[in-house]
Amino acid sequence: MIFRAKYAILNDRTIIEDGAVVLCGSKIREVGRYTEIRDLYPAKVVDLGSAVIMPGLVNTHTHLELTHHKNLVNHYARFTDWLFQITTRSNCDDCQQINQAILDGIQLSLAGGATTIGNIHSSGKGLETLRNSQIRKVVFLETLGLSSHVFADESARISKTLKSLRNDDLFTTAVTPHAPYSTSANLYQYCAEIAKSDQLHLSTHIAETKAEIEFLQYGTGEFAELLNMLNISLDAWNPPGVTPIAYLRKLGILDLQPLLAHCNYLTDNDIDLLARSGSSVAFCPRSHKYFSHTNHSIMRLMAAGVNVSIGTDSLASNWSLSMLDELKFLADNYEELLPETLISLLTINGTRSLKLKYIGKLEKNWQADLIAIGISDDGRPVFDQICDQASENLMTVVAGTICYRNENLEI
Amino acid sequence: MIFRAKYAILNDRTIIEDGAVVLCGSKIREVGRYTEIRDLYPAKVVDLGSAVIMPGLVNTHTHLELTHHKNLVNHYARFTDWLFQITTRSNCDDCQQINQAILDGIQLSLAGGATTIGNIHSSGKGLETLRNSQIRKVVFLETLGLSSHVFADESARISKTLKSLRNDDLFTTAVTPHAPYSTSANLYQYCAEIAKSDQLHLSTHIAETKAEIEFLQYGTGEFAELLNMLNISLDAWNPPGVTPIAYLRKLGILDLQPLLAHCNYLTDNDIDLLARSGSSVAFCPRSHKYFSHTNHSIMRLMAAGVNVSIGTDSLASNWSLSMLDELKFLADNYEELLPETLISLLTINGTRSLKLKYIGKLEKNWQADLIAIGISDDGRPVFDQICDQASENLMTVVAGTICYRNENLEI
Repeated sequence: MIFRAKYAILNDRTIIEDGAVVLCGSKIREVGRYTEIRDLYPAKVVDLGSAVIMPGLVNTHTHLELTHHKNLVNHYARFTDWLFQITTRSNCDDCQQINQAILDGIQLSLAGGATTIGNIHSSGKGLETLRNSQIRKVVFLETLGLSSHVFADESARISKTLKSLRNDDLFTTAVTPHAPYSTSANLYQYCAEIAKSDQLHLSTHIAETKAEIEFLQYGTGEFAELLNMLNISLDAWNPPGVTPIAYLRKLGILDLQPLLAHCNYLTDNDIDLLARSGSSVAFCPRSHKYFSHTNHSIMRLMAAGVNVSIGTDSLASNWSLSMLDELKFLADNYEELLPETLISLLTINGTRSLKLKYIGKLEKNWQADLIAIGISDDGRPVFDQICDQASENLMTVVAGTICYRNENLEI
Repeated sequence: MIFRAKYAILNDRTIIEDGAVVLCGSKIREVGRYTEIRDLYPAKVVDLGSAVIMPGLVNTHTHLELTHHKNLVNHYARFTDWLFQITTRSNCDDCQQINQAILDGIQLSLAGGATTIGNIHSSGKGLETLRNSQIRKVVFLETLGLSSHVFADESARISKTLKSLRNDDLFTTAVTPHAPYSTSANLYQYCAEIAKSDQLHLSTHIAETKAEIEFLQYGTGEFAELLNMLNISLDAWNPPGVTPIAYLRKLGILDLQPLLAHCNYLTDNDIDLLARSGSSVAFCPRSHKYFSHTNHSIMRLMAAGVNVSIGTDSLASNWSLSMLDELKFLADNYEELLPETLISLLTINGTRSLKLKYIGKLEKNWQADLIAIGISDDGRPVFDQICDQASENLMTVVAGTICYRNENLEI
């Protein structure tokens, strides 16, 4: 099959007019100008018209199992109040609800232009649905528990789940201790050991709120209140007295080149630690806005050479799961970032963040993970038009399979 | 979750106004009048408005792996010319194409109101995609071969594939020798043996064309020509000199209560054999029209007590894979059948045809396989309105999971 469109964007620099991508099975056989390619490959041509064929978007931080919590969670100003609500609600979710949430989440992700997701999975439910889905995914199995008596059960549970899952072309398992205010140092270190021995990627929520910083510094504040409300004992909690990033370093987590979600509040020293360790950051711009955070460190992180990628977070703290929406939001609210840079953040930086290969660019022999963005073709630069409010995703292809078609697309 | 709609149809007889279906996991917990149910079950209510909640439709004969052959096959008057084209084309299909065809076919089936399909699978490709899909399916693994030297390979292949597949809640394996003009008596009998020993359902294409009857009677005609064109030797072919149904009886196939696809040309004696044996028929109304057949025996079959169900056949011989379209076609072209009877044909008769249980009616503790058909609610009988050209499927639920939502449905 050959996809043809007005433009093909191969990466953050290369635009081809009248572009074409030739597929062969799950891979890209060739990319180039349509007129130069068409005679070489006698395959069916799908002409997408006024559109841009580009690498599929990589959503490096999402929680599909919370998809049904859209509109269910009241919008609280305080993160800990939100977390209390989501925690108590999630405990009531049955298999069917989570299965539906994951199925819907996958559809919404594909429709929004994501071909790959880094998905936090906590419940253990709906894993087969996730595994069997057509989207490419790194599934970070989540563990948490602050009390010492939780450790044995949680470490056993996470090991057992990991053993039960085989990786395949579209599915990679990984591990994620939830966050420093919810997960003991022991459990963090246990995850680090598994990650090292089984060569798994590791992610964690970190430096998301000022309250987290206070809790790690002094053991006080909103998180102490939250844990109290949840009847979780703080007896075993010794505040490390350092920043969240310095704490991760102390725990040996940074040595694993982890993927760090949020990083909303960082000191210069934190940024230096991240850069030196080769950690990646999953910035969630609209979730950041949802919780009324301001002044994310993205510019400082990028200037320091840290690999920053983009996540939607869950529908419990975002208005959609669409990565294209995330791109448009960034273009509107982070004017200091060029559209070309934004494309990098949402594609190849995502690949690096998830430690995957051969996705995030359109290149010969790379995976055929691509999308087609419909544009009005009004003469403005193509990258600008992709970020325009009027652009829309027409088609999402993962590993050579068309997984989503816009209703207006007749192919 | 509780689904509520203007009407709920529980089976071919029972209509409830202001109906509600309460789901519990993959099953139906309760059905009844909304006002009598709502206080008993404190679950989220999804109000579908001017719609009919009814059992999901059961498509008992389709070939999803041919979905991409829509518009590719020229419309030939002669079945054998069509078959030659589809055979030679299918041989060129690669894994990716078949995978895409199956994925698209599942989406189209769900969108068209099918919750269960009886799917013929020939290529061996894309089986994982089929297996992992959210639709309920009986997968009839197809084998064929008329020459004696094919037997060893084909029987080994089919046994191996069967062994490699585990049934699950939504997936049941079965076997199908293709048709008497393409499959040797040995291979038919081998399939019968496997079906018996492994307790598998068996289906076959039978009595589809007058040419087939001639070929079985005399060994002459279009099928002799087709096999010649395909370089298939007729040396091993001894025309049984009986009708296709009598031939199946002779082979011991009828003893298995098989599902017989098409049955377009039947004698009174054939119908008697079918009725006595407890065989089921998969009638494909629009495929029947596509090939310009006339006067299907459906009325005689039903009068004789044969269980008749409905299939779409593939997109290579139909205009859509929508079972709702099939229902409308039947309502328009088979006026002797009441709408209530049509609903039976497309629901509970399908269940019986596929030898499944607990689907095809909305009943307490049965599977939550249901659809919601949007109607204009113009005062005509509800069954008539479902069959009206303007009706549309709003939602398809399989085993309690919403697998399809109409774009206009906001739930």
